[in-house]
Amino acid sequence: MQPRIKKIHDYVSVNSIDAFFITNFYNIFYFTGFRTLVPHEREAYALVTKKSVYVFSDGRYERHTPFIPSREGNVGCVFEFKLLSPEKGLMKHLQEIISEEKMVRLGFESEDLKWSEYNTFQKTLGVELIPQDRVGVKIRAVKDEREITKIQKACEIGDQCLHDISKTLREGLFEKEIAWNIEKRIRDKGCEIAFDPIVAVDANSAVPHYDTKNGNGRVKRGSLVLIDMGVRYEGYNSDITRMFFVGKQTNEVLQAYETLKTAQEKTINQLTHFKKYSEVDLFCRKEVSRYTLPDSTYPHSTGHGVGLKVHENPKVSGTSEDMIHVGNVITIEPGIYIPGKRGMRIEDTVVIDSLDPRLRGDDKQVKVLTAFPH
Amino acid sequence: MQPRIKKIHDYVSVNSIDAFFITNFYNIFYFTGFRTLVPHEREAYALVTKKSVYVFSDGRYERHTPFIPSREGNVGCVFEFKLLSPEKGLMKHLQEIISEEKMVRLGFESEDLKWSEYNTFQKTLGVELIPQDRVGVKIRAVKDEREITKIQKACEIGDQCLHDISKTLREGLFEKEIAWNIEKRIRDKGCEIAFDPIVAVDANSAVPHYDTKNGNGRVKRGSLVLIDMGVRYEGYNSDITRMFFVGKQTNEVLQAYETLKTAQEKTINQLTHFKKYSEVDLFCRKEVSRYTLPDSTYPHSTGHGVGLKVHENPKVSGTSEDMIHVGNVITIEPGIYIPGKRGMRIEDTVVIDSLDPRLRGDDKQVKVLTAFPH
Repeated sequence: MQPRIKKIHDYVSVNSIDAFFITNFYNIFYFTGFRTLVPHEREAYALVTKKSVYVFSDGRYERHTPFIPSREGNVGCVFEFKLLSPEKGLMKHLQEIISEEKMVRLGFESEDLKWSEYNTFQKTLGVELIPQDRVGVKIRAVKDEREITKIQKACEIGDQCLHDISKTLREGLFEKEIAWNIEKRIRDKGCEIAFDPIVAVDANSAVPHYDTKNGNGRVKRGSLVLIDMGVRYEGYNSDITRMFFVGKQTNEVLQAYETLKTAQEKTINQLTHFKKYSEVDLFCRKEVSRYTLPDSTYPHSTGHGVGLKVHENPKVSGTSEDMIHVGNVITIEPGIYIPGKRGMRIEDTVVIDSLDPRLRGDDKQVKVLTAFPH
Repeated sequence: MQPRIKKIHDYVSVNSIDAFFITNFYNIFYFTGFRTLVPHEREAYALVTKKSVYVFSDGRYERHTPFIPSREGNVGCVFEFKLLSPEKGLMKHLQEIISEEKMVRLGFESEDLKWSEYNTFQKTLGVELIPQDRVGVKIRAVKDEREITKIQKACEIGDQCLHDISKTLREGLFEKEIAWNIEKRIRDKGCEIAFDPIVAVDANSAVPHYDTKNGNGRVKRGSLVLIDMGVRYEGYNSDITRMFFVGKQTNEVLQAYETLKTAQEKTINQLTHFKKYSEVDLFCRKEVSRYTLPDSTYPHSTGHGVGLKVHENPKVSGTSEDMIHVGNVITIEPGIYIPGKRGMRIEDTVVIDSLDPRLRGDDKQVKVLTAFPH
């Protein structure tokens, strides 16, 4: 049995449900290899039962089956394709399978299924619906070697792009020009952007999720430029943020930058001293707070998992309940922001390679995948 | 009062609820003007009560308020910004407002709220949660003049792009090269693509939602090229599909194309003879079926609404319950597909300008916004 499907099978049997119904686009892809075109529309569903794996989609995707191995590599499993049509929709198909396999308890993705979908299921299916909390995202949080290789490659392409872009930074450029240049470089290499690049100059950099496309900032002499960008390579993402100084900076800026840099690097080095990501967030926040200007803020979490989605589990935040595991790929990205004035963030994508305490401090424990210098 | 918020107020009072809680990214933007960076992550919420409008978001977006009128134009309303923080999250804020305004019945977007969110609300808020079905999308289905002007502009930019691209089509080009050229032209004009362009050559065109980026098709002599693309201009989308013939086609192809073209144009001309979009779908399907090759299929609906999202209400399908209204902007896009061999689709974006029966047949009833010749 394909190892990813086996994880769902194990889950189903441990949690005393008869089957697991998957609605999340990335989880459907991860477990079955089946992928539709629009991630945020319901174009497909999957059902893993004790006997079989079913994928449901409409005629637009019928010719996608049997799954054609894409550049994402051999991630698919064998599944039965069920064609959704006006005559025979999802409910009829599910009723049929439920009856054939005599199901009583059907698990569903509680963090993904909409209230109205749940309501229809409840009215129609005649089984007990058992909410399952973030099963797919938790499994996906531990990456296998093949996945890490892809993320590493995405990071390398990002590094190269930043390298090229850094040489072009000069007075007069608009933020959105720089962002579009970043995107073109990535796309010309046959990759995708992981997200719209954030390029934020001076006061705009104080907005952590600055909307570059709708901004009008422009590089001036002495500007501080924040670039937050990522690459998607064969479905897998990278994420990196760097600060660029165009001309001379004040001591205040340089000092803040040094604090931030030290805090970020220290957090990465200490990562495996902790058990939980909430401790990592706390540690990093404490380090950043050494920069004690009263108006400086740090209004976001320290990091997030990276994989098929650029923001996924584990969460590296104060309220995170996620434990640190080998195979986690996460960002560490503290920031120091002075609202209305400027902001700085340094972000790397790293992988937890080992939790063996004998390797502590060794670069075999945590590998930084983004290599562009700080 | 801002007219869009007034619609929610009217809705709240007619439906005997105390307030309406909005989670959908596009609805939050449409009603309040507040917009976060990532449409498909929960980065903001809105609450319209009898007294006030609240927007909830975290520190990354605090500096977005007061709302800075963007290029999208003056769509915002006055709202109170509530900062979400680890100390004071959404639940605490909502509890406070519920208690202040003595709410009993809280409406929510049942097609958008996830089961797990609903569950948290139910456990925490101590109000009756009243599911409301597609309130925002139904209001958004009727566009005002300003919105139509933007969609029209998006269509014009798309026409120009198709015009330019059509001149470059030649043997040897890869589908994805053509798609990337389409995107670059649109982006270089400062617009966005509405969706990843579909460029499908020969047998690939038989897959209605063909995945161009992961395909390897290439234009040959005698190829049939399907291009499905859209532009986003100031937040509003267009959608168009055209067929291109690179070299001579067989009579079979030409005949199918003629049938399709006639069916599509006839459907647009007859649009306002119907009351419901399901009737439009039925009519179009019947016209297409004049092309009676036994292996030809038409496995998707006849069209969809276009606006802030490229796929939105109304639905133009056999199972649609949507009525035809003045101000609807929709696509009409029948197709004829011969699996494994080839597919054709012709798609235009049109606006319902008037339902006055005295204008029947007149182009004042239905205006075709996409002008690139068939």
